Amino acid sequence: MTQAHPSQHRAGVGYPHPVIAGIGDDCAVLGLKPGCEVLVTTDFSLEGVHFRRDWAPPAVIGHRCLARGLSDIAAMGGEPLAVFLSLALPKSVEQGWVDKFFKGLLKLANRYKVALAGGDVAQSQQGILADIIVVGQAPKGRALMRSGARAGDGVYVTGELGAAAAEMQRLRGRGRPRPEVMAEPRLLVGQAIRGTASACIDVSDGLSTDLSHICQESGVGAVIEAEAVPAAKGATLEMALHGGEDYELLFTSARPVPESIAGVRVTLIGEIVRGRKMELVDASGKRRELPVRGWEHLR
Amino acid sequence: MTQAHPSQHRAGVGYPHPVIAGIGDDCAVLGLKPGCEVLVTTDFSLEGVHFRRDWAPPAVIGHRCLARGLSDIAAMGGEPLAVFLSLALPKSVEQGWVDKFFKGLLKLANRYKVALAGGDVAQSQQGILADIIVVGQAPKGRALMRSGARAGDGVYVTGELGAAAAEMQRLRGRGRPRPEVMAEPRLLVGQAIRGTASACIDVSDGLSTDLSHICQESGVGAVIEAEAVPAAKGATLEMALHGGEDYELLFTSARPVPESIAGVRVTLIGEIVRGRKMELVDASGKRRELPVRGWEHLR
Repeated sequence: MTQAHPSQHRAGVGYPHPVIAGIGDDCAVLGLKPGCEVLVTTDFSLEGVHFRRDWAPPAVIGHRCLARGLSDIAAMGGEPLAVFLSLALPKSVEQGWVDKFFKGLLKLANRYKVALAGGDVAQSQQGILADIIVVGQAPKGRALMRSGARAGDGVYVTGELGAAAAEMQRLRGRGRPRPEVMAEPRLLVGQAIRGTASACIDVSDGLSTDLSHICQESGVGAVIEAEAVPAAKGATLEMALHGGEDYELLFTSARPVPESIAGVRVTLIGEIVRGRKMELVDASGKRRELPVRGWEHLR
Repeated sequence: MTQAHPSQHRAGVGYPHPVIAGIGDDCAVLGLKPGCEVLVTTDFSLEGVHFRRDWAPPAVIGHRCLARGLSDIAAMGGEPLAVFLSLALPKSVEQGWVDKFFKGLLKLANRYKVALAGGDVAQSQQGILADIIVVGQAPKGRALMRSGARAGDGVYVTGELGAAAAEMQRLRGRGRPRPEVMAEPRLLVGQAIRGTASACIDVSDGLSTDLSHICQESGVGAVIEAEAVPAAKGATLEMALHGGEDYELLFTSARPVPESIAGVRVTLIGEIVRGRKMELVDASGKRRELPVRGWEHLR
């Protein structure tokens, strides 16, 4: 069932296409561009697991909830078509919190001209439960996969890494939340590299984990230069290598890539190699294994 | 992120088309038939809200979780393309329960040749949280909407109504759960009436509520004959009129409709009229207002 949400915001307003029918029928109806395939991604944002109400303002939680989904569309080189939100709220949550959550979510949606076209609502017995579904499109056979990296390809990353991990450490030390830590899904970069990148993934679980997914799916290894990894302000190399929720794009390419794409810095951080090993090279040329340590171990 | 599920069952096995890429990339990639539009529906199944573990076996809960979504696709006259499941489990849930839940869900998925193509997994702090997403297709401009009913159209319903409400009452009286109360989504009927029906909805919230949605979206009223409403065994007229979760199709048509479609009984229960009123006529011809009382008031 496609249901209205406990917010005044109505779906599809201002963006009649590609949402042919949104909230108010059993399903939403979406139109694809000719020659496109459908992309689908779903991501939970659960209170106490993915966010804490005392660690971030509601608008930031709403932004991040949608950013998770849009970032998956970006990683495929896709365009988002419509967003669906299943939201379960405990009775105790105030309408003001919900309004601000939607404000943050819809501000991001509007920036990419993607409509909230439905979802489900329910009462939760404990904690806020959100599941964001983003449906997108990509030209047939052109979606960026994890499986296309080949030995000799350069390894690139957009923006900077470790900001979310650094913020998490600050909050654990009882710092005040900084609302400006809001990752921007790299949709325009993803679309721009569709003809260039051989493989792509978004950095949601941390560089080491997400690089291991590319290596595994492509049957290759990688050598990363520690000095080249672009760490965010306040982030250690450890945070940049293993911290998650940065939502930058990690991709490989056989061809040279510009240093800036769609206004976003792109950094060459290493090379794809034969074999299955992932290694880290320091400034002196010394190599060590790059362990796969996700987000979780930093918590 | 499209993640593997805590089950041995892998997506897409046996049904390579229309799932071009499933579990194991950032998004699933789905191919549509030429000339089709995309249908999307999402439905929560939350423990303590939509189901109780002591009131139904895990396979039945899994079946119902998916039936909710497939029924929405049926109500649009669509074909399901792929299923996504976001599932959060408390640590305390045993793998045996999860396996049986998936068994019930996948048995239904296999019956309609639709693959589980992804979703998300997380740990829940309390209760089992499932969000089912079904993506389907329908020929461009041919999806059945709630808004097409016109005065003079007949009102039809598939199968029988009130079985879920009767079962709920039995369970409240401490009866043992009857696993056979498993609604069958009416996908084949929905597809068969695509050229005939003027409006359609699935009976998820109860006949009176779902009929009111058709009336509201179409700007019409309806007269229902009490004697014609097909009550399930053990269900009162009240249960058939207002009980939910039967997942039958309620539709309108200007043209005559066969008494059986795709092996499912179809019953003419009334007529669409001008105005906005919904009325119930008894055997003696006496009319009274048909109140909109959903599922909830029976709980």
